Amino acid sequence: MAISMYSASAPTFIRMLGNLQTWLDKALAHAEARKFDPNNFIGLRLAPDMLPLSKQVQIASDMAKGCMGRLAGAELPKWDDNEATLAELRARAQKTIDYVKSFTAAQIDGSEGREITIPTRAGELKFDGETYLKHYALPNFYFHVTTAYALLRHGGVVIGKSDYLGGR
Amino acid sequence: MAISMYSASAPTFIRMLGNLQTWLDKALAHAEARKFDPNNFIGLRLAPDMLPLSKQVQIASDMAKGCMGRLAGAELPKWDDNEATLAELRARAQKTIDYVKSFTAAQIDGSEGREITIPTRAGELKFDGETYLKHYALPNFYFHVTTAYALLRHGGVVIGKSDYLGGR
Repeated sequence: MAISMYSASAPTFIRMLGNLQTWLDKALAHAEARKFDPNNFIGLRLAPDMLPLSKQVQIASDMAKGCMGRLAGAELPKWDDNEATLAELRARAQKTIDYVKSFTAAQIDGSEGREITIPTRAGELKFDGETYLKHYALPNFYFHVTTAYALLRHGGVVIGKSDYLGGR
Repeated sequence: MAISMYSASAPTFIRMLGNLQTWLDKALAHAEARKFDPNNFIGLRLAPDMLPLSKQVQIASDMAKGCMGRLAGAELPKWDDNEATLAELRARAQKTIDYVKSFTAAQIDGSEGREITIPTRAGELKFDGETYLKHYALPNFYFHVTTAYALLRHGGVVIGKSDYLGGR
């Protein structure tokens, strides 16, 4: 099998979002063992001008959703960013996994040259599909899941590299 | 052009290692402006049982080097992990970029099915080339560059998402 736009995107999103669910589960167990409110994790930030855990998870979700939908040329669903508990963030990850899985390889493959336009506050960004996947969607996705991991790790949750990589 | 094993690996390593150099430059400038020893960054950790900045950069380097070399079936050069200053870490990133650039697409493309064996303390890990790239080399690489970014950001360096993504 040759690597393809589908195989370079969907399996990564599905695996890392599943791993994220494990980190959230371990955060919940850690808080319960130490008898503090697990939702204290929600607002943690690595720096006062960085986004909190909830937003890191929501943006990771949006990056996966946006990547799959845009590469397929689908209308993107709008999801409210209203998760306020670890359980709700876990459910957001699951909703994202389910959305990624709703696409077939045939809908994504061949999208290397598709014109992708991203609206941002600073104006529109335009990419071809392959550049968008490799230099926008994947690095942004990894940035936000890794920052979520770092926040939980910094907050004392007992997770390690095998939880980060998952899949074994 | 179709996405390929080369296009899914080398450009990501080259771009993100170049971005890492920018973060290190900004860390140096920040320390000089605030008049503290810039090498105080070298030993920073996000948690006492996480690796320090120097090791995050060295492992990111090793992941890029190992990925390119192994996919090409080349003998991997052994690099000492002896960087002790920001300038030396910057040079390590450059050495890695140069190594990645030493491979042609023809040496990497078609490596989806190549058998890859990684020696670890827990024994050997075996992958096919595509699984190795997508679920070991890239996530590990992103883990360590993002943790390096988080350490610098946590340490007060004025860097932001556009520095993380780079390329524009």
